[in-house]
Amino acid sequence: MNLLLLQTAEVSCKPLVVNGRRAAHVHRVLKAQPGDRIKLGVVRQSIGSAQVVSSSDEQLVLEDVQLEPAGEPPMLRLVIALPRPKALRRLLQTVASFQVAHIDIVNAWRVQKSYWDSPSVQPEALETELLLGCEQGRHVWLPTVSCHRLFMPFITSFSDGPAAGPRLVAHPGSSKWLRDVDTSGSATIAIGPEGGWIAKELETLEQYNFQSVSISKAILRTEIALAAILAQWELLAP
Amino acid sequence: MNLLLLQTAEVSCKPLVVNGRRAAHVHRVLKAQPGDRIKLGVVRQSIGSAQVVSSSDEQLVLEDVQLEPAGEPPMLRLVIALPRPKALRRLLQTVASFQVAHIDIVNAWRVQKSYWDSPSVQPEALETELLLGCEQGRHVWLPTVSCHRLFMPFITSFSDGPAAGPRLVAHPGSSKWLRDVDTSGSATIAIGPEGGWIAKELETLEQYNFQSVSISKAILRTEIALAAILAQWELLAP
Repeated sequence: MNLLLLQTAEVSCKPLVVNGRRAAHVHRVLKAQPGDRIKLGVVRQSIGSAQVVSSSDEQLVLEDVQLEPAGEPPMLRLVIALPRPKALRRLLQTVASFQVAHIDIVNAWRVQKSYWDSPSVQPEALETELLLGCEQGRHVWLPTVSCHRLFMPFITSFSDGPAAGPRLVAHPGSSKWLRDVDTSGSATIAIGPEGGWIAKELETLEQYNFQSVSISKAILRTEIALAAILAQWELLAP
Repeated sequence: MNLLLLQTAEVSCKPLVVNGRRAAHVHRVLKAQPGDRIKLGVVRQSIGSAQVVSSSDEQLVLEDVQLEPAGEPPMLRLVIALPRPKALRRLLQTVASFQVAHIDIVNAWRVQKSYWDSPSVQPEALETELLLGCEQGRHVWLPTVSCHRLFMPFITSFSDGPAAGPRLVAHPGSSKWLRDVDTSGSATIAIGPEGGWIAKELETLEQYNFQSVSISKAILRTEIALAAILAQWELLAP
């Protein structure tokens, strides 16, 4: 946890009191002492610091909260084929440690149906992992997230309205790389399941103007492919 | 496993017989049938394919092995502070899925002494994870690896001889990024432990001409930071 991340409703109280996991972390790992200033942020809003009044395993009390607007929100949208539940949790933390605006979790041919019944795809469970990712990444840009149990209705929704920047699909062996793409603004990047999209899915994505891009000569695990493309995007974006 | 990876000694036999984990994977996951051709490679040497004679959970028999030289070897050297044993295994797989020439695993102030006594740092254990990474990445460039239980003698060894390309140390908040560095040839990239290098270590690294570079505005877990910088390197390298 590199940032104490709060919801808007939490910061309005004076003094500011934080309980549970975050309090325990500040106490045990960061070893905050009364008088120390710690870094904190408000989800999708502001970032700054506050002074520790008291800290214990159960409760953290803060005062003198100083916050500034968090700057420009991220503009990347990710489309991710649902991985198996254990992998999903890690993957969401990894993705959210970078700055991402929105995540669409979609079905694909190589996604096992049973994954959709896992408690990990419940909204609260998704948000928990994404919050942990933001805390790791030390930023307030908690991504919004939607789940789509059917691939086709989701993809066809891309026919409506103008494209918000390039649409990309990560696919090993493509001749185009991220350096060949306009990285100056918004974009949508789709990443398939372990084993990849099937040919029919790739065709459908192409039909909706998703261009294939290579991330690496290597074949990467989905979580690592996501980290790779997010890092490459950040390197190229202004 | 996206590539059946063999040691030089293994390919000299005709017919070529593979036992154990790799045979079981080809049989159960790839579902290879007699007559199928599968992709295979020889460590640091060649890559190609072979025809399946028979496949079972215990044994895979191949014939008509066709191999070509594997091309230019990678030129990146990584210096990694020893992570905790469980993280080390994942991290080595992730690193080796990209193409890396050599890995130095070093001590650092924030590395727990006990980590060095783990079976995970034994040469055979390290190689096992690296082989899995190459199989994932679908290439034959198994990195060589050395362990250095003392930071200072390792770092001072960099005073000998000419530098093999730029020396970089990943450090959040640096003004320099990988795009500001010569990525046309060899390089050495150092990544600290969770929690980062301490100031004294950074000073020492600078003294031996390691320049700080940012990988992301975010603070990334070590494994993800490694994936990020390897992906950025690959994007920029010719």
